[in-house]
Amino acid sequence: MNRVKPRTLSGFMELLPEDQMKMERMMQILRETYALFAFTPLDTPVIEAAEVLLAKGGGETEKQIYRFEKGDSDLALRFDLTVPLAKYVAAHYAELAFPFRRYQIGKVYRGERAQRGRFREFYQADIDVIGDGKLDIANEAEIPAIIYTAFSRLGLKRFKIKVNNRKLLNGFYAMNGMSEKSQDIMRTVDKLDKVGEVKVKQMLVDELSMIPSKAENVLDFMAICGSNAEILERLECYRGMDETFDCGLDELRAVTEHLSAFGVPEENFSVDLTIARGLDYYTGTVYETELTDYPEIGSVCSGGRYDNLAEYYTDRQLPGVGISIGLTRLFYVLQEQKLLSDEVMTAPCDVLVIPMTENRAPAIAAATAMRAAGLRCQLYAEQRKFKVKMSYADKIGTPFTVLLGEDELAEGVLTVKNMETGEQRKLKDEEAAAWIWETVRRRNAEAPIRE
Amino acid sequence: MNRVKPRTLSGFMELLPEDQMKMERMMQILRETYALFAFTPLDTPVIEAAEVLLAKGGGETEKQIYRFEKGDSDLALRFDLTVPLAKYVAAHYAELAFPFRRYQIGKVYRGERAQRGRFREFYQADIDVIGDGKLDIANEAEIPAIIYTAFSRLGLKRFKIKVNNRKLLNGFYAMNGMSEKSQDIMRTVDKLDKVGEVKVKQMLVDELSMIPSKAENVLDFMAICGSNAEILERLECYRGMDETFDCGLDELRAVTEHLSAFGVPEENFSVDLTIARGLDYYTGTVYETELTDYPEIGSVCSGGRYDNLAEYYTDRQLPGVGISIGLTRLFYVLQEQKLLSDEVMTAPCDVLVIPMTENRAPAIAAATAMRAAGLRCQLYAEQRKFKVKMSYADKIGTPFTVLLGEDELAEGVLTVKNMETGEQRKLKDEEAAAWIWETVRRRNAEAPIRE
Repeated sequence: MNRVKPRTLSGFMELLPEDQMKMERMMQILRETYALFAFTPLDTPVIEAAEVLLAKGGGETEKQIYRFEKGDSDLALRFDLTVPLAKYVAAHYAELAFPFRRYQIGKVYRGERAQRGRFREFYQADIDVIGDGKLDIANEAEIPAIIYTAFSRLGLKRFKIKVNNRKLLNGFYAMNGMSEKSQDIMRTVDKLDKVGEVKVKQMLVDELSMIPSKAENVLDFMAICGSNAEILERLECYRGMDETFDCGLDELRAVTEHLSAFGVPEENFSVDLTIARGLDYYTGTVYETELTDYPEIGSVCSGGRYDNLAEYYTDRQLPGVGISIGLTRLFYVLQEQKLLSDEVMTAPCDVLVIPMTENRAPAIAAATAMRAAGLRCQLYAEQRKFKVKMSYADKIGTPFTVLLGEDELAEGVLTVKNMETGEQRKLKDEEAAAWIWETVRRRNAEAPIRE
Repeated sequence: MNRVKPRTLSGFMELLPEDQMKMERMMQILRETYALFAFTPLDTPVIEAAEVLLAKGGGETEKQIYRFEKGDSDLALRFDLTVPLAKYVAAHYAELAFPFRRYQIGKVYRGERAQRGRFREFYQADIDVIGDGKLDIANEAEIPAIIYTAFSRLGLKRFKIKVNNRKLLNGFYAMNGMSEKSQDIMRTVDKLDKVGEVKVKQMLVDELSMIPSKAENVLDFMAICGSNAEILERLECYRGMDETFDCGLDELRAVTEHLSAFGVPEENFSVDLTIARGLDYYTGTVYETELTDYPEIGSVCSGGRYDNLAEYYTDRQLPGVGISIGLTRLFYVLQEQKLLSDEVMTAPCDVLVIPMTENRAPAIAAATAMRAAGLRCQLYAEQRKFKVKMSYADKIGTPFTVLLGEDELAEGVLTVKNMETGEQRKLKDEEAAAWIWETVRRRNAEAPIRE
């Protein structure tokens, strides 16, 4: 037979079972956290009409998209979860209650140039709150609490949720008469981390033809730092010069004000005037999340407030706020940095039942009893040598085995072996399940990330 | 602005939030059940190289597949989860432990003619056990236990797992000298339910040129029924005439033998000689599952034993056994038949906290406390009239609301309202959580299907 080489396309993540279990655990934590904050799960198609997905059109999107024809239909694979959400909300407007809070964890597709750590198929884990006409600032204030809860449950401690406000920035540029250049300025200022203040000032003057004093104004503003309270106090100095600025400052205060009521520690949160988010649809609060020890990774959870989710589909004003975690990339980075915990349960079973007699009925009954006790249980049914059986148990990493031979049958017990410690006990079904659960419960509670 | 009509392609299921919650519950039950039987989750790409997906080639598959080019690559969307599994096992053979047990719940794509109840994007929920070289019959015997557990947990009682064996059928045809015609005969016999015995006999004689006595042999064989023990006893009469038949009979005995040890009630299981499964790669036990009151739906969970999973990718012999649930179609049918339970929790939250004061801090703290107690909690942050707030609570179907006004703040309590009974209680945080949990725990345990 003419065989085809079994390969997976480059840019497509395909994990081995142990890593997949870790990924599943991360997804499960995100699902649970998003649900805890009362987001409802949605699942939209991967394929949409190209016309619908590209309603906004233009730019990089069009180049990267997977687009093809089937019959008469011009189809495309979704490249994010926001456009399908906009379509969904516009299409089902009458049947939804607003504010509408949804989460979606799903694969999206971008035909980018393949390179290490870049994926063409990747998971996004998004939440959005959509208002009908208006949406209270309290929704923006809640977002850091959600990020904090999600990341803490994943096992991270050393991360910082950075918050800024687009109105504050736009207002600042307006009061300095730089509104038209604001996009260019933001793009230049974005390089502060990389090239430093002196170089940025020079770029502002040389490339954007700003007079040096104005460039200094910008750099002074961006340099405002300190505790959240200190930053807000220094920002108060600018109050009264521009309405948009004042509104942005009020919003920033509102977002920081209730942090402790939301249970977010100050150390995991900071106002940061240098972040802006590239996308031009953000209009208020913007968020980025940085792993403190890995700033080079960039933001691992970003988003912001927008005023008009579905303008390409409906004339209804649907403001919202949302964040997105690029889950596949995050997982890849955690793998690379060896931050995935080995304590997480990655075996396919909690206990492997190994029959040692010809008659399988007692082993089957034991496995059925383990499952009735809620344990993930595998019956090793192959007729192989004892050594092969035990080597299989090692290979799949089962935390426990149950041996069932003539002796055990005669005594009416199971020989249960803790594979990690080597300890063996002869126990009845319920005792066995209880003993196994001690370890399994501990392992199941392990966070998937270990800093 | 030129607006695009927000539409979802026909043949693509997109659910409203309440139905989506029911679907999620079904998926969660399948994930848990598959895990309980020690299947490890896998997640393979939706897109594969066309060459890889179509290695087997030919037939309907090629016509229905979504295939397209991107750059120089000839790509296709997976049309089932079996081919990607074959690729995965062949590609990662050295890193896997055999028997390898995996489950995958994922979307697959078939560009079929659109019609009611037919989907172009649909979920399959598959399990497979793959052996290396050989695989014990006990694995085939375990499958009915998995189907039984999954369906019972979904809430179904009136279903029948039907089992047959391809070796038994092939052996029977061989002993009657009908081996070449066996495919045609099986296809004709498959119509027994629809057109009846007389018509089938006529077709066997007229269309397949069988002599009447042989046609009667076939019909007599297919008519064997009774309890499992009775059927097996009648099959014993054919023993000794064909080796393949005898082997099939032994396998069928082995599969039925341990049902009670596996916890499968006899009423949910039957040997049925008329089922064969169309696919030619099945070589041993075959399974179908019928909803007793809805036979017209056809099988909702099918599969079987095969001898060579990955022959198009590797020369290793990888026998296996697997089943698949067409989840999207099953969900659609359950919806149509009004079999989805309304008792399942479909609200986005367990409790909606409604602040009645200007200062939101106490409401935020109350919501944080509810979440700390594990309850899915939403803070209603919009500044609207009381009536609007309560109508929102009704619309999202939250089982509880918490009202927090000046009185409550003064007394240090929350007013908690059970939205179903109308009962209101003034409680402290922990008491409130405990009271809410009583209802939530009950609702969360509800099965998604109600017969």
